[in-house]
Amino acid sequence: MLVVMRKDATADQIAGVVRAIEARGYKAHAIPGAQRTAIGITGNKGAVEAPAFESLPGVLEVIAVSHAYKLVSREVKAEDTIVDIGGVRIGGDALVLAAGPCAVESLEQTLTVARRVKAAGAHLLRGGAYKPRTSPYSFQGLGLEGLKMLAAAREETGLPVVTEALDLESLDLVEEWADCIQIGARNMQNFTLLRRAGRAKKPVLLKRGMSATLEELLMSAEYILAEGNYQVILCERGVRTFSDFSRNTLDLAIVPAVKAITHLPIVVDPSHGTGRRDKVAALSRAGAAVGADGLLIEVHHDPDRALSDGPQSLTPAAFEDLVADLRQIAPVLGRKL
Amino acid sequence: MLVVMRKDATADQIAGVVRAIEARGYKAHAIPGAQRTAIGITGNKGAVEAPAFESLPGVLEVIAVSHAYKLVSREVKAEDTIVDIGGVRIGGDALVLAAGPCAVESLEQTLTVARRVKAAGAHLLRGGAYKPRTSPYSFQGLGLEGLKMLAAAREETGLPVVTEALDLESLDLVEEWADCIQIGARNMQNFTLLRRAGRAKKPVLLKRGMSATLEELLMSAEYILAEGNYQVILCERGVRTFSDFSRNTLDLAIVPAVKAITHLPIVVDPSHGTGRRDKVAALSRAGAAVGADGLLIEVHHDPDRALSDGPQSLTPAAFEDLVADLRQIAPVLGRKL
Amino acid sequence: MLVVMRKDATADQIAGVVRAIEARGYKAHAIPGAQRTAIGITGNKGAVEAPAFESLPGVLEVIAVSHAYKLVSREVKAEDTIVDIGGVRIGGDALVLAAGPCAVESLEQTLTVARRVKAAGAHLLRGGAYKPRTSPYSFQGLGLEGLKMLAAAREETGLPVVTEALDLESLDLVEEWADCIQIGARNMQNFTLLRRAGRAKKPVLLKRGMSATLEELLMSAEYILAEGNYQVILCERGVRTFSDFSRNTLDLAIVPAVKAITHLPIVVDPSHGTGRRDKVAALSRAGAAVGADGLLIEVHHDPDRALSDGPQSLTPAAFEDLVADLRQIAPVLGRKL
Amino acid sequence: MLVVMRKDATADQIAGVVRAIEARGYKAHAIPGAQRTAIGITGNKGAVEAPAFESLPGVLEVIAVSHAYKLVSREVKAEDTIVDIGGVRIGGDALVLAAGPCAVESLEQTLTVARRVKAAGAHLLRGGAYKPRTSPYSFQGLGLEGLKMLAAAREETGLPVVTEALDLESLDLVEEWADCIQIGARNMQNFTLLRRAGRAKKPVLLKRGMSATLEELLMSAEYILAEGNYQVILCERGVRTFSDFSRNTLDLAIVPAVKAITHLPIVVDPSHGTGRRDKVAALSRAGAAVGADGLLIEVHHDPDRALSDGPQSLTPAAFEDLVADLRQIAPVLGRKL
Repeated sequence: MLVVMRKDATADQIAGVVRAIEARGYKAHAIPGAQRTAIGITGNKGAVEAPAFESLPGVLEVIAVSHAYKLVSREVKAEDTIVDIGGVRIGGDALVLAAGPCAVESLEQTLTVARRVKAAGAHLLRGGAYKPRTSPYSFQGLGLEGLKMLAAAREETGLPVVTEALDLESLDLVEEWADCIQIGARNMQNFTLLRRAGRAKKPVLLKRGMSATLEELLMSAEYILAEGNYQVILCERGVRTFSDFSRNTLDLAIVPAVKAITHLPIVVDPSHGTGRRDKVAALSRAGAAVGADGLLIEVHHDPDRALSDGPQSLTPAAFEDLVADLRQIAPVLGRKL
Repeated sequence: MLVVMRKDATADQIAGVVRAIEARGYKAHAIPGAQRTAIGITGNKGAVEAPAFESLPGVLEVIAVSHAYKLVSREVKAEDTIVDIGGVRIGGDALVLAAGPCAVESLEQTLTVARRVKAAGAHLLRGGAYKPRTSPYSFQGLGLEGLKMLAAAREETGLPVVTEALDLESLDLVEEWADCIQIGARNMQNFTLLRRAGRAKKPVLLKRGMSATLEELLMSAEYILAEGNYQVILCERGVRTFSDFSRNTLDLAIVPAVKAITHLPIVVDPSHGTGRRDKVAALSRAGAAVGADGLLIEVHHDPDRALSDGPQSLTPAAFEDLVADLRQIAPVLGRKL
Repeated sequence: MLVVMRKDATADQIAGVVRAIEARGYKAHAIPGAQRTAIGITGNKGAVEAPAFESLPGVLEVIAVSHAYKLVSREVKAEDTIVDIGGVRIGGDALVLAAGPCAVESLEQTLTVARRVKAAGAHLLRGGAYKPRTSPYSFQGLGLEGLKMLAAAREETGLPVVTEALDLESLDLVEEWADCIQIGARNMQNFTLLRRAGRAKKPVLLKRGMSATLEELLMSAEYILAEGNYQVILCERGVRTFSDFSRNTLDLAIVPAVKAITHLPIVVDPSHGTGRRDKVAALSRAGAAVGADGLLIEVHHDPDRALSDGPQSLTPAAFEDLVADLRQIAPVLGRKL
Repeated sequence: MLVVMRKDATADQIAGVVRAIEARGYKAHAIPGAQRTAIGITGNKGAVEAPAFESLPGVLEVIAVSHAYKLVSREVKAEDTIVDIGGVRIGGDALVLAAGPCAVESLEQTLTVARRVKAAGAHLLRGGAYKPRTSPYSFQGLGLEGLKMLAAAREETGLPVVTEALDLESLDLVEEWADCIQIGARNMQNFTLLRRAGRAKKPVLLKRGMSATLEELLMSAEYILAEGNYQVILCERGVRTFSDFSRNTLDLAIVPAVKAITHLPIVVDPSHGTGRRDKVAALSRAGAAVGADGLLIEVHHDPDRALSDGPQSLTPAAFEDLVADLRQIAPVLGRKL
């Protein structure tokens, strides 16, 4: 942390700040400049709140330097983490495709879509049995019945299953029936749920919140790792901005940013990221090209009749075309598909 | 809902859209204009997803018209709802002040602050026993012990207590020990928690999520009302924007917007809304002047040593000065303080 | 500026950064911490670009410390600047009201509105003769004719005139005919126009750009001061966010932020800040309560027929009611109205 | 436009709105629904302001339907526009690369970079002779001398030149010396400059403003087309959001959105879009993969000593590597490189 003094700060004021730092048991390093003095703080454990010194006399501003994340940092673990979802490895040299319906609606629908995406080249089956819905009057998912349908589709196709848990109760069931536990954007800072996910025996796919900074996303992952579960995959699914032609703004620069700071893998969800079928394929290609470890893509065999988010689902045929494109892009990044 | 056709849409394409609307059991109303045709949809129950018709041939765009909220709407209940928190009424002609420490740290601290804010004119005691923290390594609150301290402070001062519940477990305890259950910004779309709050016997203070639209805030309130709890207070606490001189951007225009649409009361939290002590008083005055039904203000008798969010807490003396200002502003809005 | 090294940075890497700093003629101050080393830079003239050292081996991040603004800073001039617009002083102990139509439409309209706002207590007449319009097909203002109408209204009512200049040509005319030159949000970083305004003999009202940071707003003011014109008033008129119930999000926390950093006065424009008549009065009261030096309010005697932005204009009667409210709020801030 | 009535609107109120519509010479189409009545408006020329009817009794809200853009719309011209910059065609089946230094600093620097990017496969030379800078104290560009250096580089390498004009004076010179006139993000709504660009004899590259909606970008293009210059290229360069790990948030979904609405080509600028060298290559690949017609990439032979935006410039070697990647991605989109 760095305390920047005003130009007209007196020697007494500077000494006062130094005393305040030392009173907390930290070390103060005064850096006298041509125009003003700055005072570095060391010895603190990262838990010092930046603004604590802001109201001392003569202080212009206080600048945070160190980050609070530890276990997720490349400084702690330099090599890439590879997460294993039922035998499918994410974070290595493969581009992993998770595809399936937004919501599980019936056994027939789930099997139909699972067969189609498997045939087209998907590695994982995604689909919601528990749906977080803005309105209490919207379809909320089939729950346990939906999980059983996903498991049946896995049995037939061999595709491991990624599905969302909304609360402690559904997390117990998702952990039992699925292969990867998804924590959705709205729950990114549901810390009770994160801690429970950190004690789960299955990997966790953690989606970025709608207005989460990178630091906040990493700290939420830290909650999971701190409980002992190191199998965490991050997911960019678009953030909320003023931009009005897509449901969210897909913030793809997070992929190289994440790769620089953390060893955890990151995937991109262009379906929620755009909310519009006509943009999903284009942003999927972009997600692969920017260097994501995988993509989450909604596919429905009859999107116009889907019970949830139909308009952002690809048809199986469109998904096949997309995979053909991705097979050409993946090698540019040194990835297999 | 309104389907807008392209200028060059053919009569066949228009007929196709009309058929698609009618196939869903709705009624289509074609409105031929000089340049293009628009088709209104009626008979739907509000659950129709806007984008469902977007991919039909000849369609330019689809515009949502009706809103999904019902119980929270002034169209359902025209007169203002007045929420009663342990005898303190919010939503009527009083400007209600809830004040207290960000986090409950000790019985002595809680009593000290409660006495001071009571003496200064506060009506409710606020303070966190369960703290949602970005970092797993930060102080997470005293839990049940904290709730007991708040109850002890209520016993002495008579101030009813507002405090946050983070999950089902803490909500049970907050419902038992406090007078109003706060749902924080990070949990605004924790639908399991909202439903539980809807079955609580105490009023709920629902904070706006960091990037929630007004529609989303109202739909989250709708979750609570739909379970039978009509005692809901909305709370603006700042939204996340690019703006960099305050922790959040306090979006005060939501107050008149809420008043026009819903019968529920709304309060403003300038402490979290700005994150900086030096702006709290100014934005508190602004919150009162814009017409809020109340204010949530953090007060700590020793902000520099506070375990959580000290830098955004006012001293008791600064709070007294603020209340003096608010006593002059409240009558301008026809409110008592 | 502060260069933060990675935890695993070698002594060689640290020495390399120190050499790179010294090679630019600056002084390096290494601060060895328990976990990592940080290196302060002094001696630079503020013009050093923060990211320049980011790609050196061993560097984790680079943090900017000093700000580029000078003349606008309270560090250069501690006391408040008071700007004189035709005898009306902004920045002292008065709450100054500028009112008038969005666009000048006719002499009769201008005189009618000017008389009404004068009678209601306004100090300045505002109105656009040159209108920046998103569409080339919208009404673009009456130009010089409009300026003459404003001057005629000033002659009759005694209200000095504030009006916008869009380019060098219109600035020449505004400087000649009006009392204060407004630079609009879209031109906040039109540096050629700012420099010309800096050579004008009249005060300048500089509106914040739609997504401008405080630093950018101050740097644009710095352009004007650097050319010799110290009579600059800042203006908050709302920023662009995801928030959807008002045209812009009025960012009132900028008022105390500006007061802390700069000696320049700041006014608030709730008409553009909300875009909706039903919110203008509420946000005007909030603007006064937050401590603004003045308000810019659109008033039209027949808003439903206004050629430009009618829906955000108050009627004269609504303006009178608002002034009555403001007369009660201004003294709370120690201001006269 | 659609006027939505309240559920409890009376027949008189509905009739009142119909009369208000007809009084303006438009046609009203009442659509009675099960819950409420909506009233469509036709016959208007797109210039009607949506909020004009909002304050009439019984009105719930007013929804804009038609868009104001005309000449830029695919409804007016269905086939793609191909813009010719000195023989290089943008908007067809080629992926066009414009590369060069952020700022022109010297003849030698310009020639060095131009030779390197030409050898690597670039089609156009970009570089700033007039630089819009946040600070009045930063390097503002070499002006006419810079334009002459760019022309000299074109003479030697054959690369046509794209460079920014900041105002009317520099636009005259850019039109004379360069092959394509760039209008920067800060000037996207400098309507005087747009009109002048519309009368220029050279193509115009129009950058999206930092918080511009798609509609606003298209309307600014409309200003240029309306003056007779149909050779306009749009450019996405990142928008301002809360996201903090890149200078701007590159909003790539605009590319398919633009392709659906307008016939104009669109290019992507990943250098300004990210502001950090370590993200430029990744986002360049993403820009190509999303379907952009071209890329604008900053290249400097000595980025650490560049006078402007060095940290976002690629080295020539990094640019060569990037072009090798792009040669593999372009064919996926059916494009040549």
